[in-house]
Amino acid sequence: MRPPKDRSFIAETIAIGSELLIGGRSDSNSLFITDALGAIGIAVRFKSIVGDDQSDIATVLKAACSRAGIVILTGGLGPTVDDRTREAIAAVTGARLAHRKEALEGMKTRLAQWGRIPNKGQLRQALIPSQAIVLPNPVGSAPGFALVWRGTHFIALPGVPAEMRAMVQQSVIPYVISQYEHSKRQGRQPVMRMMFHTWGMPEADVDAKLKGLVTKRMSIALGLLASPTGVLVSLTTEGERALKEGTLTSLAEEVRARLGEWIYAEGQDTMEEVVGRLLLKQGRTVAVAESCTGGLIAYRLTQVPGSSVYVDRAAVCYSNQAKIEMLGVPAKLVYDYGAVSREVAAAMAKGMRERTGVSVALSVTGIAGPGGATETKPVGLVYIGLDGGGDEVITREFRFHGDRSVIRQRAVQAALDMLRRWLLIKKGNA
Amino acid sequence: MRPPKDRSFIAETIAIGSELLIGGRSDSNSLFITDALGAIGIAVRFKSIVGDDQSDIATVLKAACSRAGIVILTGGLGPTVDDRTREAIAAVTGARLAHRKEALEGMKTRLAQWGRIPNKGQLRQALIPSQAIVLPNPVGSAPGFALVWRGTHFIALPGVPAEMRAMVQQSVIPYVISQYEHSKRQGRQPVMRMMFHTWGMPEADVDAKLKGLVTKRMSIALGLLASPTGVLVSLTTEGERALKEGTLTSLAEEVRARLGEWIYAEGQDTMEEVVGRLLLKQGRTVAVAESCTGGLIAYRLTQVPGSSVYVDRAAVCYSNQAKIEMLGVPAKLVYDYGAVSREVAAAMAKGMRERTGVSVALSVTGIAGPGGATETKPVGLVYIGLDGGGDEVITREFRFHGDRSVIRQRAVQAALDMLRRWLLIKKGNA
Repeated sequence: MRPPKDRSFIAETIAIGSELLIGGRSDSNSLFITDALGAIGIAVRFKSIVGDDQSDIATVLKAACSRAGIVILTGGLGPTVDDRTREAIAAVTGARLAHRKEALEGMKTRLAQWGRIPNKGQLRQALIPSQAIVLPNPVGSAPGFALVWRGTHFIALPGVPAEMRAMVQQSVIPYVISQYEHSKRQGRQPVMRMMFHTWGMPEADVDAKLKGLVTKRMSIALGLLASPTGVLVSLTTEGERALKEGTLTSLAEEVRARLGEWIYAEGQDTMEEVVGRLLLKQGRTVAVAESCTGGLIAYRLTQVPGSSVYVDRAAVCYSNQAKIEMLGVPAKLVYDYGAVSREVAAAMAKGMRERTGVSVALSVTGIAGPGGATETKPVGLVYIGLDGGGDEVITREFRFHGDRSVIRQRAVQAALDMLRRWLLIKKGNA
Repeated sequence: MRPPKDRSFIAETIAIGSELLIGGRSDSNSLFITDALGAIGIAVRFKSIVGDDQSDIATVLKAACSRAGIVILTGGLGPTVDDRTREAIAAVTGARLAHRKEALEGMKTRLAQWGRIPNKGQLRQALIPSQAIVLPNPVGSAPGFALVWRGTHFIALPGVPAEMRAMVQQSVIPYVISQYEHSKRQGRQPVMRMMFHTWGMPEADVDAKLKGLVTKRMSIALGLLASPTGVLVSLTTEGERALKEGTLTSLAEEVRARLGEWIYAEGQDTMEEVVGRLLLKQGRTVAVAESCTGGLIAYRLTQVPGSSVYVDRAAVCYSNQAKIEMLGVPAKLVYDYGAVSREVAAAMAKGMRERTGVSVALSVTGIAGPGGATETKPVGLVYIGLDGGGDEVITREFRFHGDRSVIRQRAVQAALDMLRRWLLIKKGNA
């Protein structure tokens, strides 16, 4: 096994907190740090999560030191005795903890803005290891710090996302750049990553379509990740190796050519942002009639700032009565075909569009399970309708697999993708 | 620094996959493993995430071996050349990789059920390190395996959640129990954890209320974790140490006594499940009128299987016109007070209840930002209304901090909690 040859440009994140071991939160802090460091050419190659136990933290710190040149710790800097990051770093590095003037003053200034003075717990937050640089916290009370031990930079930040983010941007990135100024001048390039979000094609088919695209010599990694909302394709440059001019761009072009309209978004873009931009550009409005998806289509559409311009309304018609009253679905239709049917999906979309006068109405009805299945209608059966004011309402049938939550997520994604493809056609016709 | 004295009962999870470093998924696999091992007395104290680089995986394996007696790896067992877990384990442990008969046969049997035969990539999945035990995969094609190196058990599983879960239950837990049978007989007890979900009280206040509750000698850790949906309080027994009979139970009682109705749920329970059970027990139905929350209240309520019994419908009235048409909010009210006002919140709840005849209607109107603020109405201002058919509609004003997504999440939680507290009072009166 070769050890990493030069660990200077290898980073590791360590999230500290016993709740993180059991809590089930996604570690958004480490992703933010990964992006911020990647932009200046430093790859996060390891992530660790550890509880509040001081000796466990020490173990993780030592392992990180052996393989990474930059170690960013989040959490464990709070005011309670549970917060052991300071003590663990001091113990591992042999530093002494003492109240630091600039840390105290920053904290006092901040608390004074809120009309408060530091309490005993908060005063603990001004304990900084000897030789560490204090990193001010422009948002909260706990300062961070940075120190070098055995050639590795250890940077400790609070775990509160808003504080961590502000400190990464204002202090950590400038600190790392200043430490690496020399190497940077030697022409090191940032880590680059392109992401392509696809929907509707199984992972094996995406894999087959991309076969032979990336070769070993390119210094680019091709990644596929399947989830309920589709398959994510990524191209990532390998931070330490030089990349041939234009390689990434031409590979991206090839991914686009091979996957075509199965790609619904790139980079940090989301399905709802893509759909929102198309609606906005075309001056169209949308309304949604949801049954089994329970409001998630509306929620996702309105997650985009400014969406009030094109989202008119949504009706979550869980009961049959609601479908009839809110959308004017004929009771006979529900009786004859059942609430989960192509006919009812069509009537829901049509009713919504006619009642609101929006450009396009989207509807979903289905069986998310675990109950509600019949002999002819299994869990996962979903009908989606789209009424764009043409002669006929477009309807599609889907049979999704997974549990209740997965089926609902897939149904939402399928509905939004149907709207996206319809808007793309309209755009083409315009 | 003391190294862990006895690492036999310490576990580590390692999630393998470059996409996990950049992808932003929550690592639900490791949480499942944490629960499953916790139930048999083994604490997951470390979690690592590493990319598909063989040498990086090896580095992580070695660090894990030094601190954990059980290491469970997920991912990197797929059919593509990106999948490097097998090779990394073989290289680190000095094992040879060879096609194993039982692995091949299990795979062939499974694929035959789908009318397929193994392709070249899938055949790679039957490569198993010498001396490892094959762990059959009852759901997918890739088998897992377990081997012992330097006293640590390494267990490799596929990363696909459904496959990983089935294998943990059917193979990993029995394997670990059989390995630990001897120690278990010596009276080792399972790790126990109790969780209390609170809403509406700042973390510092929760901390203050719980002051002095847990002392060092109790062998129980008290954890607090703040998030947009409230503060999670947890009590976790420390796996290696014996616990005094009844300690956890009496501590839990004390947490309940100190936090009272601020606790909205315990354990794996969610707000929507608690609210759903109250509605069901009381035979009440609910309808929701949402503006800034965009459908998330309805989505969360309907996330509970069987919720169609008590959720009648929801209206997402994003435009003023929708509020007037769907809920009968007087246009004059919107004009006089603005859409974001106590008056409109009340009219939305009242309109929804009267139009539907449900027992209780909930409404939300607010400014989620980043746009939409005025001189008198800042981003984060939210009004929630509740009409339970009494003389007056209950309304409350909130001023939330955070970005658009956080404000929306807090507004949803506040609305559901208002409904919960209202139902609790009704229950008390019944």
